[in-house]
Formats: sequence, C-alpha cells, structure tokens
Amino acid sequence: MDARMRIERMLEKTVAQAAQDVCPPGLAAAVNHAVFPGGARVRPMLCLGVAAACAGAPTATSVAAAVAIELLHCASLVHDDLPCFDDADMRRGKPSVHRAFSEPIAVLTGDALIVLAFDSLARSCADAPQLLPSLLSILARATGMSGGLVAGQAWESEANVPVSLYHAAKTGSMFVAAVKAGAASIGGDAKAWEEFGASLGEAYQVADDIRDASSSADEIGKPVGRDALLGRPNAIHQLGLSGAKEHLDRLIERALAAIPTCPGADDLKMQVRQQVRWFVPKAKAQVAA
Amino acid sequence: MDARMRIERMLEKTVAQAAQDVCPPGLAAAVNHAVFPGGARVRPMLCLGVAAACAGAPTATSVAAAVAIELLHCASLVHDDLPCFDDADMRRGKPSVHRAFSEPIAVLTGDALIVLAFDSLARSCADAPQLLPSLLSILARATGMSGGLVAGQAWESEANVPVSLYHAAKTGSMFVAAVKAGAASIGGDAKAWEEFGASLGEAYQVADDIRDASSSADEIGKPVGRDALLGRPNAIHQLGLSGAKEHLDRLIERALAAIPTCPGADDLKMQVRQQVRWFVPKAKAQVAA
Repeated sequence: MDARMRIERMLEKTVAQAAQDVCPPGLAAAVNHAVFPGGARVRPMLCLGVAAACAGAPTATSVAAAVAIELLHCASLVHDDLPCFDDADMRRGKPSVHRAFSEPIAVLTGDALIVLAFDSLARSCADAPQLLPSLLSILARATGMSGGLVAGQAWESEANVPVSLYHAAKTGSMFVAAVKAGAASIGGDAKAWEEFGASLGEAYQVADDIRDASSSADEIGKPVGRDALLGRPNAIHQLGLSGAKEHLDRLIERALAAIPTCPGADDLKMQVRQQVRWFVPKAKAQVAA
Repeated sequence: MDARMRIERMLEKTVAQAAQDVCPPGLAAAVNHAVFPGGARVRPMLCLGVAAACAGAPTATSVAAAVAIELLHCASLVHDDLPCFDDADMRRGKPSVHRAFSEPIAVLTGDALIVLAFDSLARSCADAPQLLPSLLSILARATGMSGGLVAGQAWESEANVPVSLYHAAKTGSMFVAAVKAGAASIGGDAKAWEEFGASLGEAYQVADDIRDASSSADEIGKPVGRDALLGRPNAIHQLGLSGAKEHLDRLIERALAAIPTCPGADDLKMQVRQQVRWFVPKAKAQVAA
C-alpha cells in the first residue's frame, strides 16, 4: 500500500471509530465533512516521507503521527473558516463546515478534531509509549499558543504583527511538526530536521500567496484574494508576482539543501519536488518545477 | 502544601510557560483570564482526592493530570459561552472571554487550552511515559466527540436529545475522567472508580440545575435561568425543586457507596461531602449536607 493510501485508510478508520458509539449524528457528519475528501495531504505525506528517508519505511507510529497532523490541520481549517475569522463559504471545493452544518457544529468539529488527534496518537502508541512524549510535544508545539497554529491565527487580532513570527506560526509550524514527527516516529533525531521543515513551510506560504493572488476560486477550491481583503502580510505585496516566484524557487532549494544525511535523502528530494506541483495550480507549476 | 494550593501553583506555572516565548499578547491575556481566578476547582480536587485515597498522597503525575482536567474544563466554559452557544456575558463573576476580548480570541483561547492540557500532561509524564497512554485516553474520552464534553454540547444541536447521554457527556464525563485519572496517575485501577465518578457527575448536574433555578446571577457568577430559556433538559422541570433536592441527596449517597475499598476511603468521603457545599449556593447547602 502506498503512503497516500495508508494515510487515507488510517484517517478513515480513526474518524469512523470516533464517530460511532455515542457521538451525536450531526457532529459525526460534520467531522467527516471536514476530513474527507482531503486536499493533497501535504503534511502527512511529508511526515511519512521523512520516516521512510530515515528508516527505509514508515512504521505504524509514523502513520499515526501523520494522521494526527492531518486532523490538527483540518481542525485549523474549520475554525479559520468561521464567520468571526475568514467567514469562508467554501473549502476544498465544497461548502465550509459552518455553511454546510452550523456555526456551533463548526466550533465543536474543530474541538473534536484537536482532541481526536491527540487521542488517536496516544492509542496508537500504547505499545511504544517511549515515543509518545516527544511526538505529543512536537504536535502541541505546532498547534498551541506559543508559536503554533493558534498563535498564528491570534496574531491577526494584534495591532502589530511580527511578519516572520506570524508566518512561522501560521504555516511553518505544521511543516516543522511533520518532518520532526516523521523522524521521531522511528526514534530518529527530530531536531536535525527542523531547518528543512521551516524552509519548506516558508516556501509553502509563498506558494499559497501566489495561488491566492493569481488563481480563480474554482482552481483551488476556496475563496481567493482574502489576504488583500483582510490586509494580511503577503509575499506578492512585498515582492510582486515574479519576485515571489523567484523567492519560492530559492526557498525550495534551501529546503532541499537542509535535508540531513540519511539513506533515503534522494527519494525524499524527488518527493518534495513532486509535492511542489501541488503547492501551486497546474498552470503555474513551472515556477518551482 | 495542600491540594488546592498545588493545583493553583501548577496551573500558574503551566499557563505562564505557555504564555511567554512567542505567544501573541492578547491571546496570553485571554488564556489567563479564562483560568484565573478559578472556581471551586471541583474536578482537579477530586482527581487529587482519589489519588490520595489510593496511595496516601498524590504524585507529580496526579497534579499534572488534575491540571490538564481543569484546563480542559476551562476550555469548554470559554467555548460554551460563545455567542453561537449560550452567548453568556458573565462567567465566574466577570466578563466572559469573548466579551472581555473578542469572539476570535475566545475561539482561539479554547483551542489553546485544549492543546495545552494534552501538552502539559505529556511533558509532565516524560519520566513516566508508561502512564501517559491511559491518562491521555481518559482525558480524550471525557472531552471528545464520542461521549465527551464536545458531544454533550453537540447534542444541543440535535432535534432528538437522549437526556441521559446528554448529561453523561456534558457533565458526567469530566467527573468520570477526574476520578479515573486520579487512580491511573498512581498506577491504580481506573475502571474501578468509574461508577463513583458517574454518580457524582449526575449529582453535580442536579445541583447545578437547582442553582440555575433558585439562585441569583450574583451568587453564582454566571447567568441563571439559561436552561429554561434554551429549552434544555433540567431536573427541576422533571421533579420540581423539592423533588430535585431529594434526588440530589440520593445521588450523593449512591456516589459515596460506590467508592472502592482503598486506604483513604473515609477521608475521600469527607472531602466529597465538603465539596457538595460548593455545588449549591450557601443558603441551599443543607439539602445535601
């Protein structure tokens, strides 16, 4: 089974287990809606890519960590789309959770996905509890109030936004978590992968800015031009479109150069270059090919 | 240092650590507002009470579990108060988080507290990782979409609400978690404590219904009469005030009878009877004395 398939099967199993039993049916449906069908699953694929590069193949713990990362990512999308934040009608080409269900259910769906991420990881590590503290810390750091997704979103409520902290928290954090969790899941040195994750996260942010500025909503499945509308810091505003594309190329090369020496480094580089094609819509893929 | 003090000191340390570093200042202030000053800290006190009853004294892991439970409880209060749920102006005698700060910051405060709960527990268990999977599962079960706080809140969006499932999820879940985590934190048999926690949670729900129906907002620090307004199931509607008080007495006795044999059972019973005085405003304390 390839990596993408392993992630999808484990996501399906995890959500199905949580949604049965005594879960209110509306909440169960909303959690399903938030997770399936997914986007490119960039972060969990990266997690498994790093685990494979270090150890030849990802372990069950690697897959559990990858799934937890995707659940946390989905949680952040549901909450970011809420009326009090982006007020987005669409996500991944279909109605956002609060539009398809309700605002209360969308708040609870995000909460449920955060809990499920930590819960599923803990259950999967029951036989390898020694890996659990570091994996949980990596995930919590990436999502929490000190430099994680929650911090990134909260910077948008501040009068003075430190741009590099904002991007590192809002986008970089989950890329750092994905690569570190990949290494930690096979007992490897998570810290050694931090620079790779941070550079890749920065590249993804610039690629997302390019998408936001130059695509249609149909192409990327969510509203475009939000950054300009909401006055957020954006690479296009700072560098212009062609400047941003050159910056993206440099960031990808910097990320690839930061991959630590490991048995599967070449395969991982190839995977990253392929993933870059997901970053930007097809017509713009040549900028980072 | 007594149990209450240990909980407060550890809560202060945990929140202060998370709020420094690269946390946006508005979010840091809101998280502080949500956690301090606290209420009666009923759930974490119960967790330490059970640990002490089993093992003579709570361990550092017991305190970490108690703190995680209180952080999850605070998260649920912040989200429950949001405009899309109870739209409550007051909590613990001061403005609710969304009134004191903003709706976006209140959503993020709840998210941050959920993450911090799991994170702080994982960090505290770094030296005793074998306890972590069961403690995390207990906490996740109490908060998640299948029978936890999130499920309890989501039942309010359903047309048909199974009353016992609703109360078990919304209130009982965290009492069950508190007593099970107390036992699990010292390596004890968590399952044996489940009935005690469930009965106590049911008692607390009835006591809360009595408060809601018969107190002023000044006495309990939050709006009263919400259940009637929101059409929620409530013991007063079903049994009348004196019937509800008798029911409360029976539930307390049933809970006390369910305490498993352990060295400190008598002390724990005394603690529970004392805590009951916190459940209902002073003038009504005699109903369960």
